[in-house]
Amino acid sequence: MKNKTIAVIGGDLRQTHLAGLLAQPEKKNTVYAMFMESDMNFPKGVIRSNALEGVLPKCDIVIFPLPLLGTDGYINTPLTNQSISFEQCLYWIPPTAAVLGGMIPASLMEEAAKKGIELLDFFCREEFAVRNAWPTAEGTIEIALRELPTTLYGQVCLITGYGRISKVLARLLQAFGAQVRVAARKYSDLAWIQVSKALPVPMEQLSDSLEDVDLLVNTVPTRILGEKELSRLKSSCLVIDLASKPGGVDFETAKNLGIKTIWALSLPGKTAPITAGEIILDTVTNILTERGTHHG
Amino acid sequence: MKNKTIAVIGGDLRQTHLAGLLAQPEKKNTVYAMFMESDMNFPKGVIRSNALEGVLPKCDIVIFPLPLLGTDGYINTPLTNQSISFEQCLYWIPPTAAVLGGMIPASLMEEAAKKGIELLDFFCREEFAVRNAWPTAEGTIEIALRELPTTLYGQVCLITGYGRISKVLARLLQAFGAQVRVAARKYSDLAWIQVSKALPVPMEQLSDSLEDVDLLVNTVPTRILGEKELSRLKSSCLVIDLASKPGGVDFETAKNLGIKTIWALSLPGKTAPITAGEIILDTVTNILTERGTHHG
Amino acid sequence: MKNKTIAVIGGDLRQTHLAGLLAQPEKKNTVYAMFMESDMNFPKGVIRSNALEGVLPKCDIVIFPLPLLGTDGYINTPLTNQSISFEQCLYWIPPTAAVLGGMIPASLMEEAAKKGIELLDFFCREEFAVRNAWPTAEGTIEIALRELPTTLYGQVCLITGYGRISKVLARLLQAFGAQVRVAARKYSDLAWIQVSKALPVPMEQLSDSLEDVDLLVNTVPTRILGEKELSRLKSSCLVIDLASKPGGVDFETAKNLGIKTIWALSLPGKTAPITAGEIILDTVTNILTERGTHHG
Amino acid sequence: MKNKTIAVIGGDLRQTHLAGLLAQPEKKNTVYAMFMESDMNFPKGVIRSNALEGVLPKCDIVIFPLPLLGTDGYINTPLTNQSISFEQCLYWIPPTAAVLGGMIPASLMEEAAKKGIELLDFFCREEFAVRNAWPTAEGTIEIALRELPTTLYGQVCLITGYGRISKVLARLLQAFGAQVRVAARKYSDLAWIQVSKALPVPMEQLSDSLEDVDLLVNTVPTRILGEKELSRLKSSCLVIDLASKPGGVDFETAKNLGIKTIWALSLPGKTAPITAGEIILDTVTNILTERGTHHG
Repeated sequence: MKNKTIAVIGGDLRQTHLAGLLAQPEKKNTVYAMFMESDMNFPKGVIRSNALEGVLPKCDIVIFPLPLLGTDGYINTPLTNQSISFEQCLYWIPPTAAVLGGMIPASLMEEAAKKGIELLDFFCREEFAVRNAWPTAEGTIEIALRELPTTLYGQVCLITGYGRISKVLARLLQAFGAQVRVAARKYSDLAWIQVSKALPVPMEQLSDSLEDVDLLVNTVPTRILGEKELSRLKSSCLVIDLASKPGGVDFETAKNLGIKTIWALSLPGKTAPITAGEIILDTVTNILTERGTHHG
Repeated sequence: MKNKTIAVIGGDLRQTHLAGLLAQPEKKNTVYAMFMESDMNFPKGVIRSNALEGVLPKCDIVIFPLPLLGTDGYINTPLTNQSISFEQCLYWIPPTAAVLGGMIPASLMEEAAKKGIELLDFFCREEFAVRNAWPTAEGTIEIALRELPTTLYGQVCLITGYGRISKVLARLLQAFGAQVRVAARKYSDLAWIQVSKALPVPMEQLSDSLEDVDLLVNTVPTRILGEKELSRLKSSCLVIDLASKPGGVDFETAKNLGIKTIWALSLPGKTAPITAGEIILDTVTNILTERGTHHG
Repeated sequence: MKNKTIAVIGGDLRQTHLAGLLAQPEKKNTVYAMFMESDMNFPKGVIRSNALEGVLPKCDIVIFPLPLLGTDGYINTPLTNQSISFEQCLYWIPPTAAVLGGMIPASLMEEAAKKGIELLDFFCREEFAVRNAWPTAEGTIEIALRELPTTLYGQVCLITGYGRISKVLARLLQAFGAQVRVAARKYSDLAWIQVSKALPVPMEQLSDSLEDVDLLVNTVPTRILGEKELSRLKSSCLVIDLASKPGGVDFETAKNLGIKTIWALSLPGKTAPITAGEIILDTVTNILTERGTHHG
Repeated sequence: MKNKTIAVIGGDLRQTHLAGLLAQPEKKNTVYAMFMESDMNFPKGVIRSNALEGVLPKCDIVIFPLPLLGTDGYINTPLTNQSISFEQCLYWIPPTAAVLGGMIPASLMEEAAKKGIELLDFFCREEFAVRNAWPTAEGTIEIALRELPTTLYGQVCLITGYGRISKVLARLLQAFGAQVRVAARKYSDLAWIQVSKALPVPMEQLSDSLEDVDLLVNTVPTRILGEKELSRLKSSCLVIDLASKPGGVDFETAKNLGIKTIWALSLPGKTAPITAGEIILDTVTNILTERGTHHG
């Protein structure tokens, strides 16, 4: 993205950093950062402005945050006190602009389409998910290091599920000298786990692999850790649930059993906002490269 | 597989070892090894017999080799002087038997189907391919260590393609302290390569990443290394092609340019026949487990 | 250590856990934990008692904490409100007992010698220092993960000094995908750094290797990071000083330059008290094994 | 080393490559390669000459091979048919020259001293030994990959001794997914082995750790593997002895027990002569840097 006029709207430190990267002098972009005025370390070269009507009509590219909407239905803008609706923004965005965001609701897609604008969701991109697995794994390690009264070295760690995060996390835990097990369903996943020098646990044998576990990390977004499973764990076992809602752990039961459980969501934005901003930039760049001309 | 009567037919040391594993006393199988009499280290507990009519009718399981057929159209039997056709065997196999083999031609499938027998191909299984990536990667390292007059440490290694073997090989080369690059096409593969701490090379930029390469390993089964690419390599670069026929390297041109090229096929059976036999056993076991009753 | 009567005196959670390990049923020891009554998770099988005259005269082994003395000159007892002098204890220890502790001042050695008791310092043992390098490195990683707004992946990390902690920390940072440099003086250390796949920096060229550093970890206990060096760092660089007093960083200057500096001492006891207790146990066991009869 | 006149005398491909590196244009050296005329890939820029009286008197630096002498008492010159004595060379070397070589016998040291020449032995340097540990470890891996009918993955590997080669080899074997044990004597070495995530075996318990070993690599130069130890090994175990004469294995007994044993000496020169030449260059450079003026 070079020689473009770009608006970066809302979001957290990831968006601020994204704006800063887009505003690096060699890129010769004009970059507006909107509705993130409370960031203390605001990057150089970025123009602060909350004037939708002044900024958006001249933009080539508009980047909304991840997630695009907050729980209140307005744009997700933790770094401002103002509430802005997507409709307010859409009104001023020209049909020539490329418009991107993360976790865009279908209803907004339709609304924009009526105006002839295709909303592009960077959160759906496989490479975005792959790259984000790394900060997620690092954030998980940070939690484990902080919470466990032992070294990770020598601990028995069980990961349930073998998706992107599992793959990265298993490697990291092995580097720490932990004994790593991964529970998965498919024969091919179990083969990969073995090839990665971890111990494969067929999911149907999960219950038999819990007794000596010191750290259990769940990545499966269905309730696979219920009373039957949790009651087999040592009370000193730390459980970290990385699965999105409703999560994979019966938190109530875990609490009653005295098992410490941490439900860690959205780690990249929390533990490594600068890296997370870079990942958004790279993904947005890929999307625009695929679309060809960058609208210009 | 326990308490079964099993015939293991033809093939190389992988099959011999497979027969030995099946014949371990605790499994209580009766195992016949057919047409592999020239193996010097024949495993204990296995019964040698080439009498099809005596053995096959009583078998629960019949395991043909990988590949099932040799280039002469007969069963692939490098460890005997005899030629046996698949039809000769099929004649004596009871319809109750589970019959397995590797790389089974469609014509044989049909022939067996007429007799009510479903041929099961373990070579098609994803977990078989994944597990075999490891001995293939080890065999590749062995070739590189033998051929290069330098350590792998510090060398620039480029792998083309990012399939199973690439993933394992890249890790191993990194462990040796090589600088590893991997060329791939998809954004998500490039993201995985980066997450794995190797340098991702978009395939369309392959030509620009060749000049300083000391070891090039190809895994892509189309001719991606032609004159344009090969002429950019240092003459001291070693090229190892792991791609099945027709291979990914223009061997003629490489030869004219004085670039040493090794086309290494079927490494697992050559460099680690015992491990390769174990992998066949595990895959066959998975297949029979999925089918349920083991025909018994 | 089996069938012994043992007093574990003072100290933090490491000592509590040490007492718990010594009291495991199969060891058949009688274990007294003295002056650590505020530990909430007191291990099973350990007898709490602060009655020196009742406990010490019958002990085969007495284990003081690390460090043995607090800054107030009394025994280091953070888990009690009482102040106990070493002399009070020494009075009741029989000359047949093996008496151990960590960082024992020479004056106490002499005092005990007058009574015919040799104080054994586990902190001086090489294997103790080696084993403790691991929790120290893990604690350093925890700080870096917490403080840096980026992933460790891809960051430039410089470690000054190449002792035990450096060796372990460099490996861990490499596993995170950081670019690791280590500054050292000796040719043989620089060779080891290279062999470990990190970038060796001769100490006299340290100043030239600072500009792009994101994380600087010092392990050298002399002031090697003064104004000249610190002023070359990026203001976003995180500095962690692991060196014991007086530390290796000019903290005042770092503060004036706006560089965040964390002086992290005694990490094993803080981040992994249970592991640290195990390491003390193993070292004490080695010491007593070397002395032969265990006084019994 | 720049702007020097240098003679590189005798030796194998390491010396040829060393000469080539010294003759790189940017170094502006005049480099003579003597008594290595049968190397087919002779490097550019190097002057071939066997005329001692013409070359040596004008040299600033003279580099003899490693080892300096062959078993016949003449200079070690495998790449020529001629026999040259050290005395012949010494006669023509000016007292101003820096003279280096590897494994220099004391008698030659004395002889040279009479002429006022100090012979400098690069083989004695710690950094030389450290750097050479890497090609030695790679060569050992190559042997193991070639000889074992299994993958290294999953095999039980035992290394006796914990010197430089062991440290590097243990890491590499771990990267292959082998189960690595290391036998050592000192508590601090055992602690390092543990910290490196291998299994420490106290040397006095060596006999009890042999039964399930698939690959045994000895680095201890005393006969520690006698009949008692060898008879505990599986007959399929591969033994590689890296120890210099007399070696650490009772080869006769191993043979009688049917255990394959490979005595692998001088691996760097054999498996990675180019890298080995670079290591000699770096070490020679260090030596001359320490001596200060480079005689110029």
